[in-house]
Amino acid sequence: MKAEIISVGTELLLGQTVDTNAAHIARSLAGLGFSLYRKTTVGDNRARLATVVREALERADVVITSGGLGPTEDDLTKETVAEVLGIHLVESPEVLSDIEGFFASRGTRMTANNRKQALVPEPSSGTFFRNAVGTAPAVVFESGKKRVICLPGVPREMAYLINSGVEPYLRAYLTRNGAGEVIVSRIIRTIGIGEASLEERILDLACEGVNPTVAIYASEGECQIRVTACAREEKEAWMLIEPVERELEARLGRSIYGYDDDTLEGVVARRLISAGARLSVAESCTGGLICGMLTGVPGSSSFLERGIVTYSNSAKRDELGVDESTLRVHGAVSRETAVEMACGVVRTARADLGLSVTGIAGPGGGSADKPVGLVYFCLADTEKTSVITARMMFGGDRRSVRTRACKFGLDLLRRHLEDAWT
Amino acid sequence: MKAEIISVGTELLLGQTVDTNAAHIARSLAGLGFSLYRKTTVGDNRARLATVVREALERADVVITSGGLGPTEDDLTKETVAEVLGIHLVESPEVLSDIEGFFASRGTRMTANNRKQALVPEPSSGTFFRNAVGTAPAVVFESGKKRVICLPGVPREMAYLINSGVEPYLRAYLTRNGAGEVIVSRIIRTIGIGEASLEERILDLACEGVNPTVAIYASEGECQIRVTACAREEKEAWMLIEPVERELEARLGRSIYGYDDDTLEGVVARRLISAGARLSVAESCTGGLICGMLTGVPGSSSFLERGIVTYSNSAKRDELGVDESTLRVHGAVSRETAVEMACGVVRTARADLGLSVTGIAGPGGGSADKPVGLVYFCLADTEKTSVITARMMFGGDRRSVRTRACKFGLDLLRRHLEDAWT
Repeated sequence: MKAEIISVGTELLLGQTVDTNAAHIARSLAGLGFSLYRKTTVGDNRARLATVVREALERADVVITSGGLGPTEDDLTKETVAEVLGIHLVESPEVLSDIEGFFASRGTRMTANNRKQALVPEPSSGTFFRNAVGTAPAVVFESGKKRVICLPGVPREMAYLINSGVEPYLRAYLTRNGAGEVIVSRIIRTIGIGEASLEERILDLACEGVNPTVAIYASEGECQIRVTACAREEKEAWMLIEPVERELEARLGRSIYGYDDDTLEGVVARRLISAGARLSVAESCTGGLICGMLTGVPGSSSFLERGIVTYSNSAKRDELGVDESTLRVHGAVSRETAVEMACGVVRTARADLGLSVTGIAGPGGGSADKPVGLVYFCLADTEKTSVITARMMFGGDRRSVRTRACKFGLDLLRRHLEDAWT
Repeated sequence: MKAEIISVGTELLLGQTVDTNAAHIARSLAGLGFSLYRKTTVGDNRARLATVVREALERADVVITSGGLGPTEDDLTKETVAEVLGIHLVESPEVLSDIEGFFASRGTRMTANNRKQALVPEPSSGTFFRNAVGTAPAVVFESGKKRVICLPGVPREMAYLINSGVEPYLRAYLTRNGAGEVIVSRIIRTIGIGEASLEERILDLACEGVNPTVAIYASEGECQIRVTACAREEKEAWMLIEPVERELEARLGRSIYGYDDDTLEGVVARRLISAGARLSVAESCTGGLICGMLTGVPGSSSFLERGIVTYSNSAKRDELGVDESTLRVHGAVSRETAVEMACGVVRTARADLGLSVTGIAGPGGGSADKPVGLVYFCLADTEKTSVITARMMFGGDRRSVRTRACKFGLDLLRRHLEDAWT
């Protein structure tokens, strides 16, 4: 079965917004086994949108649009698709009451223009999926075997509706219409090994045209390996992936921190919880981001004791008990200060583990001796009475140095928990 | 003049990569005055790519592709465009020596397959721009008045070549061919006002088909208004925008926090620096993210004294001096605790301003009395001896509640600085 994606929005054509929705929808379609040969982006213009929809319907069985379902005048995706297919829109009392409820729960009233968000295809020619996280429902237009599915452009709402409504609907559609091949992917997440050296180690697995395929993607501070197989049945596809995955694990060992949707902070959180260890964090150049990442994991209150962001020297002294002479002799960015920060935060918090980061994120503050990108880490473990330190030089701008420092710090913690707490 | 963008790469169709290049190229084209009506994404497939190129050339004067200029077998953009236009490719000794130099400088040798990256259009039918940051040059195919410009897919190389080669080339092209109109946009960033109610207030300015156009975009916790004008000259376009911008400012007042590339944390940082005020932050449910956002601004060490992430009750007591009985009687998520947190952090840090946030981010921890999404804020100002508190209910999941709470807290600070510190 062939599918196409149409992203609607003038802001996309002006380059003011990066289209993350298209990638999300594409992954979902690939997972269902659709062949996606084309994605098109078009502005909030009725005539041009109508042309793009007509062209896509000539090539594809299923067309998914995102954007243009809002309450404003230039939101015209539903109206345009309805016109192209000659399908009438009717007001859904169910959706209208959802929208009213949405505003009521926020203590505000629905405005008149939100009413058009309750329009859905007439029941004989389509269906809709209710939106529990926003006001625009997803709507499905049915015309013979062809389907046009319209999703809102707000990424969170789009993702909710794909999961809750569109994927189950398309699975049933594929079954009814004789499904094609299924494509499944396994993502293996690595950290602490560069892209080029990763490629050298697994190059022989990444040949062209085999099934499963193996591909490497680098992102800031980590690399992902994607193993993709296609087969008639999902189970068969996973069986093709399994031996390749085992081989990658044998070659890469502890550089692998997780799989699929795992995040580094989620993996660290799981390990802390299962070890029953309590952590406290002292951050300088990362400025709270490590705590912010860890507290993004639900249930983080069970292991995160506290975090201290000590941007000033006086905060390092007052909050963490870093010695005045250490700061004077070695400087705030030094192994010695990192050690006193980690030992200080673990002591005042009476925690099991204390992690500290101090470095120069730039653009200012660097010197020949201590250039931008220099970062010291310390992990103090009161239970195992160990102190681990690390010194790293990260490339890139302020954002990049901070991101890499966060990931390195979390990885230091992950490896220590694997070594000493299991 | 009309332009189109074609992004080439199977990884884009599988959703494994988000297409940031297309947004970058789109901004560049808008700045030059091109009208961009369509962007298309297609995989590494010769026949389908040829079709997309042919279709785009029927509609547009200039087509820009990104991706498919690498050394591997499935990189076939140049070859396909050459075939569509009937233009021969020849090896450029200049480019070949660039590529050899690139590898030599890294202490490695060029592989045989890199040689095809030195292919460029024959001199009578095009030109090329040398790549100082990678191995693939940008190539330009010239066919009558039509142009196809092929850029590499690596974002850094694409950006370098757009700047150094493509923009100057297209400016000369526009001048020779009777330049079109210039499109300029102003983004006005608002916070604290919902999308629908924002639209009600400015609906009369957002009619279809006028110049400048006014459009609203919502993102988590804030809304942007984009005012876009087109004119023969850039100066003239800005003059069209100016009165609309003034009118929006008159209607929206303090809900406007910034313009164009401004960020909320950047605006708050500027205000803190110009007021000479020192801030300390006590975070519970936002877990360090507010500090993380503020310390993302270069120079934040001049105003951020310290940040305390008090996830546990004991941390709230030890670090901030929150009263045991306050926690027992009112709970950790209460106005009373928020006040003691802000007053505690401003006192221990001897700062001018103390901001606190305490709430329930979910998914667990909510009750009928204190549901998920409930967040209390307090801003304590020792200089102006004022204490401001706020109670909010945010919708959405954990991530969304935290993001909205961060933005609300920063906006509380912004408004207070505007009121009391200027």
